[in-house]
Amino acid sequence: MKGSTKRGTPKKRASLDSAKSINRSSDTLVFALGGLGEVGKNLYCVEHDDEIIIIDCGVLFPEESLLGVDYVIPDFSYLIKNQQKIKALVITHGHEDHIGAIPFLIQKIKINEIYASKFASALIKKKLDERRLSKAVKLKEIDGDSAIKTKYFTIGFFNTTHSIPGSYGVLINTPNGRIVHTGDFKFDLTPIGNNSDYQKMAYIGQVGVTLLLSDSTNSGVTGFSISEKKVARSIKDFMRKTPGRILISTFASNVLRVAQIIEAAVACGRKVAVFGRSMENVVEIGKKQGVINSPESNFIGPNELNNLPANKVCIICTGSQGEPMAALSRIANGTHRFIKIIPGDTVLFSSSPIPGNDLSVSAVVNQLTRVGANVVVNSPLTSLHTTGHATQEEQKLMLQLIKPKHFMPMHGEYKMLKQHTETAIETGVERDNCYICANGDIVVLRDGECFQADERIQTDDIYVDGNDTSGLSTSVLKDRQLLADNGLVAVIISINSKENKILCRPSIVSRGFVFIKESQTLLKEAELVVYDALKEKMKQKTTFGELKNCIRGSLEPFLYKKTNRNPIVIPVILNSKSAMADYSKPKQIRAKA
Amino acid sequence: MKGSTKRGTPKKRASLDSAKSINRSSDTLVFALGGLGEVGKNLYCVEHDDEIIIIDCGVLFPEESLLGVDYVIPDFSYLIKNQQKIKALVITHGHEDHIGAIPFLIQKIKINEIYASKFASALIKKKLDERRLSKAVKLKEIDGDSAIKTKYFTIGFFNTTHSIPGSYGVLINTPNGRIVHTGDFKFDLTPIGNNSDYQKMAYIGQVGVTLLLSDSTNSGVTGFSISEKKVARSIKDFMRKTPGRILISTFASNVLRVAQIIEAAVACGRKVAVFGRSMENVVEIGKKQGVINSPESNFIGPNELNNLPANKVCIICTGSQGEPMAALSRIANGTHRFIKIIPGDTVLFSSSPIPGNDLSVSAVVNQLTRVGANVVVNSPLTSLHTTGHATQEEQKLMLQLIKPKHFMPMHGEYKMLKQHTETAIETGVERDNCYICANGDIVVLRDGECFQADERIQTDDIYVDGNDTSGLSTSVLKDRQLLADNGLVAVIISINSKENKILCRPSIVSRGFVFIKESQTLLKEAELVVYDALKEKMKQKTTFGELKNCIRGSLEPFLYKKTNRNPIVIPVILNSKSAMADYSKPKQIRAKA
Repeated sequence: MKGSTKRGTPKKRASLDSAKSINRSSDTLVFALGGLGEVGKNLYCVEHDDEIIIIDCGVLFPEESLLGVDYVIPDFSYLIKNQQKIKALVITHGHEDHIGAIPFLIQKIKINEIYASKFASALIKKKLDERRLSKAVKLKEIDGDSAIKTKYFTIGFFNTTHSIPGSYGVLINTPNGRIVHTGDFKFDLTPIGNNSDYQKMAYIGQVGVTLLLSDSTNSGVTGFSISEKKVARSIKDFMRKTPGRILISTFASNVLRVAQIIEAAVACGRKVAVFGRSMENVVEIGKKQGVINSPESNFIGPNELNNLPANKVCIICTGSQGEPMAALSRIANGTHRFIKIIPGDTVLFSSSPIPGNDLSVSAVVNQLTRVGANVVVNSPLTSLHTTGHATQEEQKLMLQLIKPKHFMPMHGEYKMLKQHTETAIETGVERDNCYICANGDIVVLRDGECFQADERIQTDDIYVDGNDTSGLSTSVLKDRQLLADNGLVAVIISINSKENKILCRPSIVSRGFVFIKESQTLLKEAELVVYDALKEKMKQKTTFGELKNCIRGSLEPFLYKKTNRNPIVIPVILNSKSAMADYSKPKQIRAKA
Repeated sequence: MKGSTKRGTPKKRASLDSAKSINRSSDTLVFALGGLGEVGKNLYCVEHDDEIIIIDCGVLFPEESLLGVDYVIPDFSYLIKNQQKIKALVITHGHEDHIGAIPFLIQKIKINEIYASKFASALIKKKLDERRLSKAVKLKEIDGDSAIKTKYFTIGFFNTTHSIPGSYGVLINTPNGRIVHTGDFKFDLTPIGNNSDYQKMAYIGQVGVTLLLSDSTNSGVTGFSISEKKVARSIKDFMRKTPGRILISTFASNVLRVAQIIEAAVACGRKVAVFGRSMENVVEIGKKQGVINSPESNFIGPNELNNLPANKVCIICTGSQGEPMAALSRIANGTHRFIKIIPGDTVLFSSSPIPGNDLSVSAVVNQLTRVGANVVVNSPLTSLHTTGHATQEEQKLMLQLIKPKHFMPMHGEYKMLKQHTETAIETGVERDNCYICANGDIVVLRDGECFQADERIQTDDIYVDGNDTSGLSTSVLKDRQLLADNGLVAVIISINSKENKILCRPSIVSRGFVFIKESQTLLKEAELVVYDALKEKMKQKTTFGELKNCIRGSLEPFLYKKTNRNPIVIPVILNSKSAMADYSKPKQIRAKA
């Protein structure tokens, strides 16, 4: 059901030991069900008395070691238990790690309204439509001037710059002080698309902020990140200078980048073809939302590709992370329906590998190079990509504008939260007013001050495979790991327990263990080994459990000796109580495994 | 048996189309069975008439997607077929990607002598001892002055600098010209340990080299790499300035680095404790070989750790790649037998993550930070690590010293080989004289010139799991992937084929699919679905194949509808030809799967 959480509560500071108990009726609580100690599945809550505001509801994409897991989502137990308190779900922006778990949440809990920017709303709507959940919830569009009022809270927003349009920071006025939640942000002094609302942030800081929660993703990166404008210029340079076709891949979610690519291509006389489902989707949404406003005549379909000179073509495609099924991988492998690499092709990666993807990206680069493409990746020399998250100097600017009394780094692994705290202290936040929390830890606001509570909320990683939102058991994952490493050997025996007899020689079936055609002898020998052990065992009265142990105890050492491997051994005992099987009562014969 | 090779023959250049046929009796052939298009499993061959010289015999550590595979080794088929030709196995240095497959090779082929440096010999001997293979082969130590003569070949060596002592480049005089194989190398103008033999390399270049095979691992990295001396200085600075304990992790194979760490620690008044099996081994070998020559009194055991002030302690341990079972991971997780992180501990990573290991390293850094350690990783600011492989300027220096007429980049993925070729051309090698080859491609030397042959040698990736050196079938790996993603459901039915009857209701066993305790109902329903389908099917005469299809055809859609998953369905049919099982002839009842 639940994954083991790797995150314990960090050590509490001794100075706060005196004031850790929560007063449920008068304190304001801040906690995360996801997003602390990890990059992903963001879900933050602000609670006061009988009201809860949820900020974001995202997924985490699983590591390869979580075999067959599609998503990791937050543990909603606390919200389910307190669902009558939930007043609003507020979405800061439309990335998957902020909206991806909404379908799972609204299947468990009645949420009346989701507040999200126009762009995020469009993405959420598409997601809900696909799962036929659109009717379960009302989507309310917000902008920088929106306000949401509840009994205890007044919620406002401010424009931030991020790698997707419609990104907001959130200001929450509570009975115990003012909270700012930055969402994902960066500062780009020459941005593409939304500018950050410096004046509003400064004003909020002027009025006074009790607690700042700020994005820590890039807290290990020094300096200021490069501007999206610089990236746009680099891309345009390549579009102009490259003599042949240009294939360019980027994150489909970065619609502003996609818009820039289209603009640069068109400015250099190239027509644009778009490939890959998520890229086609984002271009469609971008057009509808006015983020992409190039005339239709600049776009071409797959069949027109070969009618144009090479230097008049720009192909935008998915696959910048080396995803094996994405357009770029298929182009590299020669399995794409419409596009083959031809001499003179240049492939630009307007992206960086996300941690964990370096091998898959490298494989695609190798394959593209092998089939003759000139491949250019992002580097300080090429400036083909920039991050969407604040680096250290930008984090400091946020801290200077908001001037919080207390600080809680969010969105990041432990080392990032720790580093962000050091950065905050450099800007003047007191060390004792910083809270490096794990999911489920509670920061309490009381009369304009904060402390970390001595209690926690239960949280966990919920593994989703297929449509089972109750989560995948860790024992199932453990079995998968064993199966993945060594395969399985199932031993089927048929006995008559009444007469204590084996009805037939054991049968062995295997998968993922040895190549069956070449290992007939091995499996035959194995059958005999088990048969001999069972015959010996059944000289006396015995139990099913003992028989199963006998099968494992005889087979496992034999297979290990022969192959140095330990497949899962699955004993199946078919018991016919009478020697003569009774067709009319099939239930009498049951397998035990 | 064999993995699908991802590497095809690169496009041949048109200019050579005229002269591609090999004259087996007079030409000299150069080819790789491993190491081209990949980083690892290096095995290069030089063949003339009835003589073959093998250079190196390494393993490749598998990607995570090769489930349960321990090693990938070269395909030895060509060597097995031509084993009477093999005159010598020459080892350039003692790293696993150059010696790791020796035990597998000598189990297949009688190799009379292995030539290796003193240090590599010690490592090979340890490896063979562990597998009780020491008697199968004679180890002959070489140094920079050694020469090996066969009927056609004279083989000489020159000292190179690499991240392990006893690294050599190889010069092979053949009837058709002179070949230089660099092994792994870098140029470090202020090295620790072996210096490069610049004079000998320059002399070889002066005399004239027909073909250079040169290390491409770092051909994507510009400039000169930093010196091992600079790293040693940085480490010493940390040893001196750090007020608390120092824990330091590096590649155990880099015994020169380990020696420097010990020297720096001792110079700063710290005693040294060594943890982790491979680190303990390398220190033992280093001491025996005189690479580590600090008095025993500078080393302490686990029990003495707590008797010293924190600033008098240096702990050297394994785990710099985040390996979950290594000492550093266990220290981070609090499961190490002797060491717990205490306040003031500093952990130094004298290493960089190997591609693919960034997530595991990141996890260990997070965990160490969480338990209170100050963690310092390698960066341009800290200079805690340097590479063992030549970067672009060093590759150019090798090309300038050796001055080859023809060039074959080796040791690297395709993009690295390609980049190295461009670098070679910059130093003056003609583009038409460069050969970007795949494993199995043949470069032919004839009368002081080279060309790429129109034929290839069969090569493949052989997957080793456990002690099966014949390799793991790709179908077995495919099954493991399916099992890993979705688990399995085995359906056992017992029939009487003579009377066309089902003897009992089907039984279902599952692993890695659903949590069985919570899914009793699902599996019971599934049994009924199969039972109904079988009853219908068996109204007429049918075959085992049809029955199996009936089981899959009824169960798979049912399970997918219920869970959105596709586990492997394994039908097992127990057939009792007579209704009454005959105990004396157990063979009559057989499972078919």
